[in-house]
Amino acid sequence: MAAQDGGAKMAAWARGVRGLLLDISGVLYDSGGGGGGAPIAGSAEAVRKIKASGLKLRFCTNETQATREKFVKKLQGLGFDISVAEVTAPAPAACRLLKERGLRPHLLVHDDLVPEFAEIDKTNPNCVVVGDAAENFSYANVNEAFRVLIGLEKPVLISLGRGRYYKETDGLKLDVGAYMKALEYACDVEAEVVGKPAKAFFESALAEMGVPPQQAIMIGDDIVNDVGGAQQCGMRAVQVRTGKYRYLTRELRETLVVAGMAERRQLGGFPGFPVSVFLLHGAWFAAGPPWCPGELPVPRDLQGPAAPLGGRPTSTSC
Amino acid sequence: MAAQDGGAKMAAWARGVRGLLLDISGVLYDSGGGGGGAPIAGSAEAVRKIKASGLKLRFCTNETQATREKFVKKLQGLGFDISVAEVTAPAPAACRLLKERGLRPHLLVHDDLVPEFAEIDKTNPNCVVVGDAAENFSYANVNEAFRVLIGLEKPVLISLGRGRYYKETDGLKLDVGAYMKALEYACDVEAEVVGKPAKAFFESALAEMGVPPQQAIMIGDDIVNDVGGAQQCGMRAVQVRTGKYRYLTRELRETLVVAGMAERRQLGGFPGFPVSVFLLHGAWFAAGPPWCPGELPVPRDLQGPAAPLGGRPTSTSC
Repeated sequence: MAAQDGGAKMAAWARGVRGLLLDISGVLYDSGGGGGGAPIAGSAEAVRKIKASGLKLRFCTNETQATREKFVKKLQGLGFDISVAEVTAPAPAACRLLKERGLRPHLLVHDDLVPEFAEIDKTNPNCVVVGDAAENFSYANVNEAFRVLIGLEKPVLISLGRGRYYKETDGLKLDVGAYMKALEYACDVEAEVVGKPAKAFFESALAEMGVPPQQAIMIGDDIVNDVGGAQQCGMRAVQVRTGKYRYLTRELRETLVVAGMAERRQLGGFPGFPVSVFLLHGAWFAAGPPWCPGELPVPRDLQGPAAPLGGRPTSTSC
Repeated sequence: MAAQDGGAKMAAWARGVRGLLLDISGVLYDSGGGGGGAPIAGSAEAVRKIKASGLKLRFCTNETQATREKFVKKLQGLGFDISVAEVTAPAPAACRLLKERGLRPHLLVHDDLVPEFAEIDKTNPNCVVVGDAAENFSYANVNEAFRVLIGLEKPVLISLGRGRYYKETDGLKLDVGAYMKALEYACDVEAEVVGKPAKAFFESALAEMGVPPQQAIMIGDDIVNDVGGAQQCGMRAVQVRTGKYRYLTRELRETLVVAGMAERRQLGGFPGFPVSVFLLHGAWFAAGPPWCPGELPVPRDLQGPAAPLGGRPTSTSC
């Protein structure tokens, strides 16, 4: 297949789409640094274009280093057209869950996130909530959360996401998932994840947007939490090449090689999103730099001829 | 079965034993506190009795907060008859492995353990070694180890044990295993464990003592790393009721209940070791307070009649 007909292919792939879910960190901006982060070139313009196109848009983030108010204010300062009401984030979802189940959390979170839990009773904790605490993940703090958890008759661990790491302006950083795993292992419990890739979290974002999963596309930089989570929910998904994206992660490369599903096509043409697509687990997903021009090199083992996958249901079409 | 014939039973169980492996932390002493720890009542006397009995003895520890020299000096100060030559510990085992494979480690360990790696080339690291770093498990340090690991083409993570937690005088503390899991998850790798419960580690201790596994008993407070590891190696094992021991861990209780193997007998009578035994995974193991008089309450679900397990090979007999 020649690259030049990619536009038509991508248009077909995106047919029937009425809404977009946009990840923020690694897609719109890289967090960290003195100014709190740097916008990714072209991303503010892309948000404006999406809004002008008539597509519904919702920001779907696992950000837990600040309240939504503070986070949105920072993004506005970086030039983004975004409001608090447009953001789906884990902390409010966790608060709903805590209230429904009468849970009183011990918080292992970033200082700036604590105000999100202002209305939650935190006396005599009967669960632990872990978020991306960053520097607050000191040994003393992690150990304190561990002691609370292992002291409970029925340990309940709620994790605001399960991300492995993310990219800041000064490099990769361990995310909440690593510390969730540490506590899971130490206490022999399984965390309940609030945030991506939890199905309930995507469903909540879709409901707030008023669009069914079949008519929505998730755009993110995390193959597991953005792309995988959205696909599990019946959505199509685009993986961007910014943020933590590394051309082929070891995980993805192995999956493709093991499954013998190494197909790659240059498509481009999705409004403002020149992308490549991979066939993975019977479903198409796309990887591309939505607002970064130019192509990254294609690994040799993905340069072979197209080998369509048959016989398995796909959640998307190409 | 009446409790009074337990002595004879236990004597039969221990028949043919020529050597003992003794865990240290939680068995001989509880670590932590201003003085570096507190001996467990009767333990120094028990070590003397074992040595006087003619049994061979080796100390088999996952301690990685200090060099063996420093650790042994502290134990001598607490009244124990122990020398460096009698101790099997993970750091020297790791150094042998690093040399054999030409690995240059980035160390995420306690400051006091660093001298054990004095002769190891640490420039331009091509692996990460994680030990019980305690306060050194800051977010910055754990993140630095993560960056080294994920930056390697073939990430190699070596962990000095896989313990979940241990008990210090001021309470439970997260052990190396929790941070090993965090790094494993973040980098999608599996750690190579040096120390208990690795078979090679027990075999090394047995070789140094000159006793085959069938003639040795491991005594420790950790059901997985001491008891389980030793049983995997063909040894019998005693779980003491000191240290991190909690009457029935949730893990053990669930295993017993699931397997329908809830049998408990009061035995007592092993020289200085009044113990109870459980039938677990087709093998006997014993739980008892070797030097703590008195009995802990027996959970109701373990008070039923004996129900011997048949049909599966046992690594020990009773």
